[in-house]
Amino acid sequence: MAQHVKSDIEIAQAATMIPIKEIVNDLQIMEAEWEPYGHYKAKLSLSIFDRLQQKRDGKIILVTAINPTPAGEGKSTVTVGLGQALNIIGKKAVIAIREPSLGPTMGMKGGAAGGGYSQVVPMEDINLHFTGDIHAITTAHNALAALLDNHIHRGNKLNIDVRRIVWKRVLDMNDRALRNVVVGLGGRYQGVPREDGFDITVASEIMAILCLADSLADLKKRLSKIVVGYTNSDEPVTVKNLQADGALTLLLKDALKPNLVQTIENTPALIHGGPFANIAHGCNSVIATKLAAKLGDYVVTEAGFGADLGAEKFLNIKTRAGNLEPDLVVIVATIRALKMHGGVPKDQLAGENIAALQAGLANLAKHIDTIRHFGLPHVVAINRFIHDTEKEIEVLKAWCQKQGINVELADVWANGGAGGKQLAERVVREIEISSKHFRTIYEWNASIKDKIHAVATKVYGAKAVEYSTQAEKQIAEYEARGWGNLPVCMAKTQYSLSDDPAKLGRPKDFTITIRELKAAIGAGFIVALTGNIMTMPGLPKEPAALKMDVDEQGRATGLF
Amino acid sequence: MAQHVKSDIEIAQAATMIPIKEIVNDLQIMEAEWEPYGHYKAKLSLSIFDRLQQKRDGKIILVTAINPTPAGEGKSTVTVGLGQALNIIGKKAVIAIREPSLGPTMGMKGGAAGGGYSQVVPMEDINLHFTGDIHAITTAHNALAALLDNHIHRGNKLNIDVRRIVWKRVLDMNDRALRNVVVGLGGRYQGVPREDGFDITVASEIMAILCLADSLADLKKRLSKIVVGYTNSDEPVTVKNLQADGALTLLLKDALKPNLVQTIENTPALIHGGPFANIAHGCNSVIATKLAAKLGDYVVTEAGFGADLGAEKFLNIKTRAGNLEPDLVVIVATIRALKMHGGVPKDQLAGENIAALQAGLANLAKHIDTIRHFGLPHVVAINRFIHDTEKEIEVLKAWCQKQGINVELADVWANGGAGGKQLAERVVREIEISSKHFRTIYEWNASIKDKIHAVATKVYGAKAVEYSTQAEKQIAEYEARGWGNLPVCMAKTQYSLSDDPAKLGRPKDFTITIRELKAAIGAGFIVALTGNIMTMPGLPKEPAALKMDVDEQGRATGLF
Repeated sequence: MAQHVKSDIEIAQAATMIPIKEIVNDLQIMEAEWEPYGHYKAKLSLSIFDRLQQKRDGKIILVTAINPTPAGEGKSTVTVGLGQALNIIGKKAVIAIREPSLGPTMGMKGGAAGGGYSQVVPMEDINLHFTGDIHAITTAHNALAALLDNHIHRGNKLNIDVRRIVWKRVLDMNDRALRNVVVGLGGRYQGVPREDGFDITVASEIMAILCLADSLADLKKRLSKIVVGYTNSDEPVTVKNLQADGALTLLLKDALKPNLVQTIENTPALIHGGPFANIAHGCNSVIATKLAAKLGDYVVTEAGFGADLGAEKFLNIKTRAGNLEPDLVVIVATIRALKMHGGVPKDQLAGENIAALQAGLANLAKHIDTIRHFGLPHVVAINRFIHDTEKEIEVLKAWCQKQGINVELADVWANGGAGGKQLAERVVREIEISSKHFRTIYEWNASIKDKIHAVATKVYGAKAVEYSTQAEKQIAEYEARGWGNLPVCMAKTQYSLSDDPAKLGRPKDFTITIRELKAAIGAGFIVALTGNIMTMPGLPKEPAALKMDVDEQGRATGLF
Repeated sequence: MAQHVKSDIEIAQAATMIPIKEIVNDLQIMEAEWEPYGHYKAKLSLSIFDRLQQKRDGKIILVTAINPTPAGEGKSTVTVGLGQALNIIGKKAVIAIREPSLGPTMGMKGGAAGGGYSQVVPMEDINLHFTGDIHAITTAHNALAALLDNHIHRGNKLNIDVRRIVWKRVLDMNDRALRNVVVGLGGRYQGVPREDGFDITVASEIMAILCLADSLADLKKRLSKIVVGYTNSDEPVTVKNLQADGALTLLLKDALKPNLVQTIENTPALIHGGPFANIAHGCNSVIATKLAAKLGDYVVTEAGFGADLGAEKFLNIKTRAGNLEPDLVVIVATIRALKMHGGVPKDQLAGENIAALQAGLANLAKHIDTIRHFGLPHVVAINRFIHDTEKEIEVLKAWCQKQGINVELADVWANGGAGGKQLAERVVREIEISSKHFRTIYEWNASIKDKIHAVATKVYGAKAVEYSTQAEKQIAEYEARGWGNLPVCMAKTQYSLSDDPAKLGRPKDFTITIRELKAAIGAGFIVALTGNIMTMPGLPKEPAALKMDVDEQGRATGLF
């Protein structure tokens, strides 16, 4: 192509932002209820909830997707684009999405702030230090680790077993050399030697806690329950036991406040919290979603990965923790990704391929089924890519229509909100006319195995669940400890409905194997791992950082 | 005492802050030249320098002290109090001080934001995450470490010797278990195993660089020169070799902007950067000092530890790096600390002790001599403590007056600016009437040994300098590498003029032993270590964190 396609950062830097003060004023937020962070970012006070207690909540639209592929789905792009489109058709919409982690930005090209003409801005800030929330989580997490090691060094009054510490350290950096380390070396004045490791900050249980807490008091309560290890007599050791709950809450008091920014079309967006969608629940904070519902008539929010991971957890975990319910689910699909699910490798996606598209539809069909299980109205959004052919789009639309599934094309990457008007109108209409019968897929007080079974069969389409000896033992242990009534947070590959990342499309007759469990008692869920989940990424051979720079005016270059 | 003496945090929280916008307006800063961080903090743009290029700089007052003792000197308190006092007597003064590190706040009681009625506010913010500068340094430092280990893991094209990596990792936390670690364990996909360690962030060379850079371009240039290790053929490996200079500069672009806050009497204060005063130069940023001089007619700034460390480095290093000169030096002394220098243990300081005071004066005398060596006007400030007797104060005053040394009582802890009016008037008068003959104690292009000798004999009063075999070898190596023309940054105990922390007062006939050198090529100095300097503190038996909390309104409790 001779034509220069603008990069995301070029589009973002060319956008005309309006001062955040004006966005705040439009949302009728009072002077004492917000704080500026520069001229284009703000933190909002939780006191807004008190003032608006009587106000009816806006409708919540949850954006999810088919299983991700390297071809890209653009779930955040559709989320932002739909928010913009709702405003274009005259609805007061507020977006609520996750905040990106800085570490991966240094590694691979790409952020989590939408794309093209459906982005949130200022994108450099959002992708770098933003308002410091993730740094605050890093600090709180590592303060706890330091207090724990100091407790052991100073006599270990709690009798903590140094071989059974489950609280690692964290950094917001892709740094494989820190995955497995030995700390406390150097003799008696340098701590107690033990095996340890670092996760990336967004994998911290504190990130999950921040995103599930509905108040400062709830934050503190959840933090106090974190289990950091076990004593030599097999008792869990909590943050409360270490008397660290007050300090951790103090370190997080500002991070708990949602961040307000705008899209390139000046639609308000709350960006707050970003837990993993495998070892955690993969959604922005409960507080941001609920605040968006107080401030707008429509909230557009998203959940990580495909509907089998993020949406399942939004619906089974976040709804209960936050006492909220979506009114409609948007399922994002792309022609390219469906063709990959139909068996085409990434380097052969160019050119029309109706057969592959039709084969790949099975993946979309399963996710639609899943949303039906939850009893929620839904619309399929086809996120248009430049090379999609008219015929491919027609095939996808016709397939949906034949089964009575709502479907709309979303051309929001190239055209911003204007490219999502039909989707927005459809979403509004469906919310008006549909009757919602929301139900979770399991009851929290069911047994751990029953909960895992429900997700594996109803959401993944598995025929059975198998457990390793270790998992069997842990389930018995956790239920004996009284943790059996927590929801399960499934840590499964995002690429497949099964636990084998190579099985695209809609695998059949597979079993899910639970290898290990982890207790996230502070966050309030039991993680069930079906494989090795990478909680500290590495840098690639040519890290994106090597191309980054800043010009004399302080403007970022090479960021994306 | 039946009377409740208010704690620093109680005084700070009771202060009436005015919106930072008003402070900004009073300083005639334009709309485009600042950004708010909440309602009481701001970052200032370096573009102010361009606008005020023609404006005459304000007078720079450097506050230093006798050798610190556990009795406390209150150098920051006098700095803040003097700034307030100057405003009371009608002078336009701006304070420029270091920003405290969060890590130690979790450990020991006490911050670095002044005390009593001479504090900067909002003190909780300043002592916790503030505007994120230190988090940005942590991130940039660890990004470099990750890029370095990734380079080695991915084939080690630069042929870096993993046994000679001098770039550690950092955290803003007191965490002794991280002092000595082994990283890269776990097999071929988990990095290359090697010995490593963590320093506290403020000990990072990047902190020193941020504080010596005078522009974004200079920041980048200094970052690019950092030596992270050596190749197998003994060549230094720099940030430039790793192509990381652009990314690091990008990560630090906002951290380079000075932070504006206010004192509890609403005097403007720039708080920016806080390097160690042993392994680094111990002063707030060059940019903050110079900006304060553009914005005020008087700048009150400080340097870490006693005049033998912070002030020596301010005068030999910072003046040259920043092209600035102080107009007067305030030397802070307290009756309590002088009595300790006179031989009284800390638990026996209560009650008048003229003999001990007189014996301790030798320490003060040496620091006055040092400032004379630099050719600068000076005033001794007696920082009043509650239990000082009138007679003790009289003895100290008389001793000064007898020798023609300017001396004033500063009662700023208890009375704020009003308690420092006489000091302020004296300082202003001395600047007006004194003739200044500033000279550094050595020339940068002298040999490394000549520079060390000059500091040891003229500033410490040593009779000679000895070198370990390692130090001899390193000096030869550094000079062969072309690093001999950098200034020396002496890493010595702060408690004594000698390199033995037990020798208080004014030790005589001692030698200084240089054990080891470290090259901080990016910062632009050679660190000469006279002993083990702790660059990663540990937590005490009862960490301050265990008492911290936050109330339902989000207000910090138990912070100090």
